[in-house]
Amino acid sequence: MSNEYTVGDYLLDRLSFSGISELFGVPGDYNLKFLDSVINHQQITWVGCTNELNAAYGADGYARTKGIAALLTTFGVGELSALNGIAGSYAEYVPVVHIVGAPALTSQRKGELLHHTLGDGEFSHFMRMSAPVSVAQASLTPENALAEIDRVIEEVMYSSRPGYLLLPSDVAALPVSTRAHALPARQPPFSPSSLDAFVAAAETQLRGAKRVSLLADFLADRFKVKKALEQWMEEVPLAHSTLLMGKGLFNEQQAHFAGTYSGAASAPSTKEAIEGADVVITVGVKFTDTITAGFTQQLPSGKCIDLQPFFARVGDQIFHQLPLEKTVSVMHRLTAELACGRTPYPVKHNALPLSHDNRLGQCAFWQQIQDFLQPGDVLVAEQGTACFGAAALSLPEDCQFVVQPLWGSIGFTLPAAFGVQIAVPDRRVVLLIGDGSAQLTLQGLGAAIRYGLPPIIFVINNDGYTVERAIHGETQRYNDIARWNWTQFPAAFGGTEVFSARADSPQALKEAITKATARRQMAWIEVILPKMDIPDLLNSVSKSLAKRNSGQ
Amino acid sequence: MSNEYTVGDYLLDRLSFSGISELFGVPGDYNLKFLDSVINHQQITWVGCTNELNAAYGADGYARTKGIAALLTTFGVGELSALNGIAGSYAEYVPVVHIVGAPALTSQRKGELLHHTLGDGEFSHFMRMSAPVSVAQASLTPENALAEIDRVIEEVMYSSRPGYLLLPSDVAALPVSTRAHALPARQPPFSPSSLDAFVAAAETQLRGAKRVSLLADFLADRFKVKKALEQWMEEVPLAHSTLLMGKGLFNEQQAHFAGTYSGAASAPSTKEAIEGADVVITVGVKFTDTITAGFTQQLPSGKCIDLQPFFARVGDQIFHQLPLEKTVSVMHRLTAELACGRTPYPVKHNALPLSHDNRLGQCAFWQQIQDFLQPGDVLVAEQGTACFGAAALSLPEDCQFVVQPLWGSIGFTLPAAFGVQIAVPDRRVVLLIGDGSAQLTLQGLGAAIRYGLPPIIFVINNDGYTVERAIHGETQRYNDIARWNWTQFPAAFGGTEVFSARADSPQALKEAITKATARRQMAWIEVILPKMDIPDLLNSVSKSLAKRNSGQ
Repeated sequence: MSNEYTVGDYLLDRLSFSGISELFGVPGDYNLKFLDSVINHQQITWVGCTNELNAAYGADGYARTKGIAALLTTFGVGELSALNGIAGSYAEYVPVVHIVGAPALTSQRKGELLHHTLGDGEFSHFMRMSAPVSVAQASLTPENALAEIDRVIEEVMYSSRPGYLLLPSDVAALPVSTRAHALPARQPPFSPSSLDAFVAAAETQLRGAKRVSLLADFLADRFKVKKALEQWMEEVPLAHSTLLMGKGLFNEQQAHFAGTYSGAASAPSTKEAIEGADVVITVGVKFTDTITAGFTQQLPSGKCIDLQPFFARVGDQIFHQLPLEKTVSVMHRLTAELACGRTPYPVKHNALPLSHDNRLGQCAFWQQIQDFLQPGDVLVAEQGTACFGAAALSLPEDCQFVVQPLWGSIGFTLPAAFGVQIAVPDRRVVLLIGDGSAQLTLQGLGAAIRYGLPPIIFVINNDGYTVERAIHGETQRYNDIARWNWTQFPAAFGGTEVFSARADSPQALKEAITKATARRQMAWIEVILPKMDIPDLLNSVSKSLAKRNSGQ
Repeated sequence: MSNEYTVGDYLLDRLSFSGISELFGVPGDYNLKFLDSVINHQQITWVGCTNELNAAYGADGYARTKGIAALLTTFGVGELSALNGIAGSYAEYVPVVHIVGAPALTSQRKGELLHHTLGDGEFSHFMRMSAPVSVAQASLTPENALAEIDRVIEEVMYSSRPGYLLLPSDVAALPVSTRAHALPARQPPFSPSSLDAFVAAAETQLRGAKRVSLLADFLADRFKVKKALEQWMEEVPLAHSTLLMGKGLFNEQQAHFAGTYSGAASAPSTKEAIEGADVVITVGVKFTDTITAGFTQQLPSGKCIDLQPFFARVGDQIFHQLPLEKTVSVMHRLTAELACGRTPYPVKHNALPLSHDNRLGQCAFWQQIQDFLQPGDVLVAEQGTACFGAAALSLPEDCQFVVQPLWGSIGFTLPAAFGVQIAVPDRRVVLLIGDGSAQLTLQGLGAAIRYGLPPIIFVINNDGYTVERAIHGETQRYNDIARWNWTQFPAAFGGTEVFSARADSPQALKEAITKATARRQMAWIEVILPKMDIPDLLNSVSKSLAKRNSGQ
């Protein structure tokens, strides 16, 4: 094997400089030689996955925790299998570099009818298919490779969304004399005069206000103002909240955290704490359907100061060229100077409803999960009963919450939790997933077992697609799924060390949790819940979705 | 529930008239109401799958057997997961109607930020992503729905490739007064004068020829001349063969069938029977890399008469507007008139190599498979050691062979075999798949168990991606996969009736096969083969692929 420094090595160095230490993917015959470079690389470790969709979900989970991820697939078959995962990363602003091993340029230029192609001698179809779900694409050649690698990775980091690199096998192996080095991050445009105008407008808005609240969401996390926000809320006691998608941004144990906001489906005290204020500062918020119970937020733009990644709004006035980092910082200072939290609004902490019988239902389940969570956990909750139920949890300090309510691809979290655990091997990763979802990506369990990872996984078995039943077709057989023996899967996947249990009563669940927490091994706990027992929030959301589907 | 006849009902009737009796898919909240119509439909049965990629593979397998299939997914998440499967159908000319349940038009027109979208109020991204892998696309509205349904389905049948229908939930539920009725199939353009010129040229070519051979491939199957070809070869004794992709087109027990042709990697007698002729008639052939051992066919166009779906060639002369059905028919007549097979070429039947030890290796395995196959079986062979090994089999009469050597998406066959078995419940379906492939689509086994299907499945466990090892990285760890306890999966998936066994010797395999054939239940047989024991054909093919990847 040659020891020459190649385009492939350059790409790996560049990934490493951007903060990536693991590469997710599946081998295929157009990426095998590049994989040699991966295996030989000192900083990058190969993480082989069971299929490409799972690899993409894994990379997504990793990026949500570590800040950026990379994914390697093979031409056509591999990359298209990953597309749904990449689209989710795009929709939810998760930066993933998608590298696709392609046929050698020499073959491409001859228009050969190769396998993994449409058999038409064309090699640009799949890059075009990736374009709507990536911020930058490049087809690498000997001439453009290094510059295009730099451009695409920089754009991925800047926009916090996926990028696409088509890497022909002969280009990957091409020796180059330039080595990669760390690049400064691209800075967003910033206008000091726009900032002045924004501050003036915001000050006018805030001066008359008796009560100011703050509502943050996922873009605050993606554009890296989480720490600044936390500090702001520590120093200026505003009632504050997140939407479900941004849950985990704040220390939810803090006195002024008002619970998770969900429009009309919010707890009454949360709704009042946020909507009842005279001025609402929104930070990195996008009002999408499932997290607002169908756009039921009562937040007229006239009383909002809205901070977005690259601009801000006061009422209907828009101020351009303002990076979020800057507007958060000036708003922190401004609210402190104006003593906006001088008379702190008495935020009420919402306790979970108590279960009054000895049945294992949603109520008893969530109480036990609440008690079980510890500071520092990463909680991954599948779209469906899991994430809507988790909305009502009060997270311990430093608890990261991973959820996908905009893209909402079921099955996402099993491989995503795998990616999260790869990113943070020393933190406890807790996954809540339904049976209907787990079946889509089941082999993700096999990958986690193969890598000896210790997540604690609750498979909520409520006998089918409960979230769909709630929307339409409660008793229709298309919402049924096969009855699997869930607890047998860890052994079938070779997980002899996995603690596998089935809990159909509160006592059994308690015991299983105790055993699971007693050791640092994977736990796989099947939790039997009644078919149509659904969390309150899901109830509200699904009614709204059903209405929309009828075109009302 | 309303009993009005809707756009959804019209679509289902149209599918039914085109020969579809099962609809594959996964429910999602934008297709639930349409699913009510599906459940109520008298001729169409819903086949719920474990995920969308598997559903697409299932539909593909069904279409290869039944002639056409339909697939239902939900917007964004569902349809993109299915894209790799659809692309495979496109590459290999398999007609699948892909129906995507979309948000209500009322929501789309307001540009709402809905889940399963990119959060930008745009609803056309995904249809554009499907365009390169479908022959027709339509976004259904109240105004265009019926006409567009007709157009797309007609085009799918005509081109034998996928089509795409975007069906908003409110459009699906819209009452219509027009009922669907059977439509005549669209006829390809036909020019009698072009046919005359073609016959004259072909006759000139054939007159001087001492020996004429015939080589057919998959397009002959897709464009429905299989029966005509069989009859031709019965009546005119030409030495004939197929490429791997068209294997199963002929009765391989016939005296003049010369074995499966693979360019330079063919058995010497096959190569001589085909290439050694003075004139070679090629029917529905596309020379792609894996089936020709890297374009090693020695068939100069000067001695070929090439029949394609819509045109024909004699030497370098091209004749347009000639449907395959017509050219096959005239060539049949012409070769008979000219008595082309007057001195039949003595075709040698290639026997499988005999195994001389008591070890279970490729040799012993294929001997047992050869003995086990029966007339009428459908043999499904995964890309990899399975399909390249199966190339050397001599198929019994009426044995259909399903393989995907152009698109070559590993994992395809487990769900595809499910689709095949749904299409032909009374035939015996035999699946050969490797461990490296089976892990990608494992939950397909769960679907087959749920539906109580009886395929006989051989999981060839050779400890990793052997086909990739053969190309590059024989001992590299990226070609290793996790060691799973394969025989435990049927029970975990609830398959109490499944015969599950592990065979690591010729005796054990024989016993397992005997037990499996004694009953009409699913069998799941793990076959332990040595890691680097690979079929001869795969050896030749992979050497050629490795060379191409280096850009040579």
